[in-house]
Amino acid sequence: MINIAILGFGKVGSGVAEVISRGYNLICKEIQDSIRIKYILDLRDFPGSPYQDLIVHDINTILEDPEVKIVCETMGGTKPAFEYSMACLRAGKSVVTSNKEVVANFGNLLCDAARDNGVRYLYEASVGGGIPVIRTIKNALAANEIYEINGILNGTTNYILTQMDRNGKSFDEALAQAQELGYAERDPRADINGDDACRKICILAALAFGMLISPSTVSCVGIRDITQTDVSIAKKFGAAVKLVGSTKRLADGTVDIRVSPCLVPATNPISKVDDVYNAILVRAASLGDVMFYGQGAGSLPTGSAVLSDIMDVAKHLKTVQPTQETWECGDPSLVCDEETTPCQYYAAVDLAPCKLEPYFDSMEVLYTEDGLTAFIAHGVSRKSFEFALSASGAKVFSKLRAL
Amino acid sequence: MINIAILGFGKVGSGVAEVISRGYNLICKEIQDSIRIKYILDLRDFPGSPYQDLIVHDINTILEDPEVKIVCETMGGTKPAFEYSMACLRAGKSVVTSNKEVVANFGNLLCDAARDNGVRYLYEASVGGGIPVIRTIKNALAANEIYEINGILNGTTNYILTQMDRNGKSFDEALAQAQELGYAERDPRADINGDDACRKICILAALAFGMLISPSTVSCVGIRDITQTDVSIAKKFGAAVKLVGSTKRLADGTVDIRVSPCLVPATNPISKVDDVYNAILVRAASLGDVMFYGQGAGSLPTGSAVLSDIMDVAKHLKTVQPTQETWECGDPSLVCDEETTPCQYYAAVDLAPCKLEPYFDSMEVLYTEDGLTAFIAHGVSRKSFEFALSASGAKVFSKLRAL
Repeated sequence: MINIAILGFGKVGSGVAEVISRGYNLICKEIQDSIRIKYILDLRDFPGSPYQDLIVHDINTILEDPEVKIVCETMGGTKPAFEYSMACLRAGKSVVTSNKEVVANFGNLLCDAARDNGVRYLYEASVGGGIPVIRTIKNALAANEIYEINGILNGTTNYILTQMDRNGKSFDEALAQAQELGYAERDPRADINGDDACRKICILAALAFGMLISPSTVSCVGIRDITQTDVSIAKKFGAAVKLVGSTKRLADGTVDIRVSPCLVPATNPISKVDDVYNAILVRAASLGDVMFYGQGAGSLPTGSAVLSDIMDVAKHLKTVQPTQETWECGDPSLVCDEETTPCQYYAAVDLAPCKLEPYFDSMEVLYTEDGLTAFIAHGVSRKSFEFALSASGAKVFSKLRAL
Repeated sequence: MINIAILGFGKVGSGVAEVISRGYNLICKEIQDSIRIKYILDLRDFPGSPYQDLIVHDINTILEDPEVKIVCETMGGTKPAFEYSMACLRAGKSVVTSNKEVVANFGNLLCDAARDNGVRYLYEASVGGGIPVIRTIKNALAANEIYEINGILNGTTNYILTQMDRNGKSFDEALAQAQELGYAERDPRADINGDDACRKICILAALAFGMLISPSTVSCVGIRDITQTDVSIAKKFGAAVKLVGSTKRLADGTVDIRVSPCLVPATNPISKVDDVYNAILVRAASLGDVMFYGQGAGSLPTGSAVLSDIMDVAKHLKTVQPTQETWECGDPSLVCDEETTPCQYYAAVDLAPCKLEPYFDSMEVLYTEDGLTAFIAHGVSRKSFEFALSASGAKVFSKLRAL
């Protein structure tokens, strides 16, 4: 019998309980043992819930019970989630989490604590909801040097952009609709401003490059300024505007990491990822491009990802837990300057291609019609791109980073 | 030091060697040991190759060397690949393979032999080339009941269909081009007829439902009869014609498993998977739809998948190997009758929707123009669909299974 505790019985925590209940036989067969939720820590009491007898209000009940080997931290926020996770690891319990804020800010400390105490800290559910991307990068791609990761990491903003594209809505209309349907929070800032996507790309970069970069040092632009004009011009040539988190390791050892709305050309499979779906595109040595697609949020998909971590720990309880990986703490000086690092940029302007060519070294024209040229400039920094655009005298209808 | 042997030094076998050489440091770090290719079994000699000293011609050299713990079977064909794999497992060596023909026909016997001998039989590279789909279904989705799998499982046919769609080529022109570029074999039948996709969907069904159905009992239609008319009508409404392997468990315990060209509507992410790329869409309880996308073939991607299995075995050499899963042998009577089992079918015909409605219970019109109606009939068997089409008196321009 494997006893677990859940910290925080909100959307994800209750999803974990439901996924365990639904898949109980399959889970027991797979881990070759039975599993039981022994405690649920929450401030609330949940009278009438089938789980009401499991509710506790004091973390010490869990910390002091040697039967509890696995703790699911599904609280959200860093306080007291970080402190509780640390205490559990130090008490010899493995911790699995869906809390991207904690992982992105303190993952290195928690991985170290897990290793020092011979237990594990797993975080599959912190990126991509139900998409098994973390485990896949860790295991299946372990032999492949990862060059680059680009992802649609936030379902709320992708829903809004899809509505703007498909139904011609304005940003405000699309946001209101997302809120009505429960896809966006009443206070949607963490999604809209890109903070949520930023935490996730930091976690992916830590996995890929072994160092955790603080989200606070990452250039992050949200979708608030995306207009119907941006979206409808892109649509003319089959492209899409998406909020993309990107990271790659540069030759000089620095890391290019950023979150911003992007022009995604039709040939990139990310351009077709719509609604609340997420997708993560990994470019690796030998393997080439691999993409993972699925529901990036929701109680059951995310609960399912948490459960995959629980099962991973459970399967190893009777043998030896695999060694916890560690992340260096990425110094802010390792993050390249977003403004001056070469990248690709897109613009739609009123000049003909021949009038633009003198200003851009490597220019790819995506679309032209009378009075409109849409193009991507390759290998140019944002600063140089802005400068060249301005020097050309073009009237700019739309201007974005490009994938 | 972990010693491995490679059986068959063709495209995949040499890919394994190259991926090990390229990623050597990363691999050693991950498995916390060094790794060495001790033998390569092939009929040929490869003079001048850096691997020439490792070449052996007698399987007994490998079987009798207790230092060899892991054998990569990358031979292709079932003879002598099956017999050699069995002998290696019985000699206490784990076997990893890219050979879908062996796995699809004898996977149950090989899994049993692995379990009986306390070793493992892994086959990540047998489906989807470099896409880590097998490991993901086994681990990450282990707690989720899998309802349904649909996949583009063959890169050659997908390349041909993409060329027909994008450049208006005929089937024969597109095939000739695929052969020129090395994407299709000189004898392309195993690809074109759907045999390759059929083996792969059998392996996925075995993973999902725990029973191995013989490819010879599966309804399998290739793409030889797909015309430019099929492709260009679908294109009018953003859909695509794809060769799809599908399997799902029906309520009565039988398995619906089939390979055939399908009309894939624009809303299905599989419709955008082009060129030689593969994609596998898994529908699971709790998790919803998850899709994995990447290069389905090629020396390095496939070699990389083989290596992920090698590393999985290597990591566990010092502890306990996870228990080998077993597959029942799926009795042919468990495969539902393709002709009479309800499914979705698509047709493009010359009648207006109102003239068709009396003949179809659940009809979804995808597109109409003067003299053309494209529609999907849901929940209808192929037999009933054909009958209704014929009864309606419609002239049929295109007729396919639909996703």
